[in-house]
Amino acid sequence: MKVLIVHAHHEPRSFNSALKDCAVEQLSAAGHEVQVSDLHAMEWNPVASAADFGCRANPDYLVYALEQRHNYEAGTLAPDIAAEIAKVQWCDLLILNFPLYWFSMPAVLKGWIDRVMISGVFYGGKRIYDRGGMRGKRALVTLTLGGREHMFGPEAIHGEIHTLLRPLLQGSLAYCGFEVLPPFIGYHVPYVSAEARGQILADYGQHLQGLDDLQPLVFPSMNDFDDKLMPLQR
Amino acid sequence: MKVLIVHAHHEPRSFNSALKDCAVEQLSAAGHEVQVSDLHAMEWNPVASAADFGCRANPDYLVYALEQRHNYEAGTLAPDIAAEIAKVQWCDLLILNFPLYWFSMPAVLKGWIDRVMISGVFYGGKRIYDRGGMRGKRALVTLTLGGREHMFGPEAIHGEIHTLLRPLLQGSLAYCGFEVLPPFIGYHVPYVSAEARGQILADYGQHLQGLDDLQPLVFPSMNDFDDKLMPLQR
Repeated sequence: MKVLIVHAHHEPRSFNSALKDCAVEQLSAAGHEVQVSDLHAMEWNPVASAADFGCRANPDYLVYALEQRHNYEAGTLAPDIAAEIAKVQWCDLLILNFPLYWFSMPAVLKGWIDRVMISGVFYGGKRIYDRGGMRGKRALVTLTLGGREHMFGPEAIHGEIHTLLRPLLQGSLAYCGFEVLPPFIGYHVPYVSAEARGQILADYGQHLQGLDDLQPLVFPSMNDFDDKLMPLQR
Repeated sequence: MKVLIVHAHHEPRSFNSALKDCAVEQLSAAGHEVQVSDLHAMEWNPVASAADFGCRANPDYLVYALEQRHNYEAGTLAPDIAAEIAKVQWCDLLILNFPLYWFSMPAVLKGWIDRVMISGVFYGGKRIYDRGGMRGKRALVTLTLGGREHMFGPEAIHGEIHTLLRPLLQGSLAYCGFEVLPPFIGYHVPYVSAEARGQILADYGQHLQGLDDLQPLVFPSMNDFDDKLMPLQR
């Protein structure tokens, strides 16, 4: 299995980075090939702009998704973007490893999604969800946060964490055709004991060992919608 | 009323930018003071890192929220962050104006939230939701997207749009104490006729004129939770 880990923590000695290191070690030891895109170390540029394109289909008016397709075909995408696309195409499993910022991804990682998951290759028109470009690949979200587990749930103060993660789990990963594994979530990590953190690392090791036995999350299927994406009557 | 518009579109002639221009014109004409943070024009840096801090409480290990508080008190926050904080503190109404990217904010805007909405000033410990630092201010999200309105809803393919926006509407704006007005959403804008776009602009003008009559969105109240943020039994 070829694994791409996209990592988005600014502190290499953080617990979040320890989770990433755990995955690299364990997956490599199990014989898988592992690449890591450490966005902070790479000084990843997260801002989608005209600078991403070496030649413009429309030089006067920037339509970002149009230029993504045009420049991919022409081979004139910014090199940092092209390199990341190649890594995703190479991998069988994509792991996004990040601290939860405002119940979502830090901007540096959101910008990896904005710039790398291009129109045409990852999705297009009706080639979304189970018809998306990443069909056949799996995705895992591994995240840490300060909040405690009881703060999330149907009656809890912040609501359900999978619901908060829907733009990522459904709207980005499932949308592009990835089979989305249940996320691994390390709660309350800045505040728990070293022993508790050790246990979370051990649990993550188990999660990784058991990936093939995990039930993927369920998302909409294009078989249930018509050409206009209206629900088919049943 | 003092209004800060934070704008995140890379194309000044886009319809999304036209909505921002409409708000500037209309609110100014009505006698309000308006400032605009045009993130692309400002070349806004969205990446939260050690470079944001002139002096470190902990030079060896970066705990971002800790350094936000420490540097704010010491006056050593990066000048771009300090300037934005001052604008938010000045305003009565914050408008976030952006194109929906992956059912959420473009990275440049997420990075404005990550770097500007600092621990201590905007929120802290139990000073969240209706006890947050931005109590007394209102927030409006104005966004455009390619998707059509029928693609959103309880039975629709992408689910409800307010649910997809929860990390922003509840988890960021309400979390910091803003009174969150119903978002203004321009559906399918790259594909509709010029006439239809003109109608959306007119509708936005109406939305802005009637802000004081809008029913704010309802979010959790700290009165309903205990010290550990568990729901109080009723």
